[in-house]
Amino acid sequence: MITGHYTDVEAVPQTKYGTQKTVMRWLIGENNSAPNFAMRLVTIEPGGFVGMHDHPYEHEVFVLKGTARVTEGDEVAEVREGGFVFVTPGITHGFENIGDDILEFICCIPNTD
Amino acid sequence: MITGHYTDVEAVPQTKYGTQKTVMRWLIGENNSAPNFAMRLVTIEPGGFVGMHDHPYEHEVFVLKGTARVTEGDEVAEVREGGFVFVTPGITHGFENIGDDILEFICCIPNTD
Repeated sequence: MITGHYTDVEAVPQTKYGTQKTVMRWLIGENNSAPNFAMRLVTIEPGGFVGMHDHPYEHEVFVLKGTARVTEGDEVAEVREGGFVFVTPGITHGFENIGDDILEFICCIPNTD
Repeated sequence: MITGHYTDVEAVPQTKYGTQKTVMRWLIGENNSAPNFAMRLVTIEPGGFVGMHDHPYEHEVFVLKGTARVTEGDEVAEVREGGFVFVTPGITHGFENIGDDILEFICCIPNTD
């Protein structure tokens, strides 16, 4: 098995899609031989967001801390700590931190090879 | 998209493999058309455990609350809040709550169809 703590994983600033005040940690993925899907942890400061984007695969998200506004196509949802989101493959989507504190969520994606 | 809160998902008691004091919630999975992998939330009371078992697919785990002892074959690791675990496909493994408080973790698995 492979174990670790998220604080020991490099927090990589994200800038694609106009993303602001956001870092991502790859906890488990092809980097450590995960055969099917990856688990990442995303941290967004107050006022930050992941810009609208699309790709042909889903996200499976679980909110650890804070409150997110998730947009997918014409739909908008607020998701707080303990909430989960299935983001549909192929639909444009984004995530905003609409709280006063940090937003943290787990975001899993399938391997795309 | 599909959104929800884990407290609104049925907590199903687990008894296979001699498992005790454990419930599981299927947050995202084939039940809501997830095409590749499932996200479940496992809650284990103090003194409880998921019994040793094996299957031909991996787990990807993130600990939300508490402290787990994870056993995989001859390996044993303690994983606390914020820790993650990749459980190797095909190796016998189990999870114990070794803390005084509740243990909660996200556990993702690939679809097995």
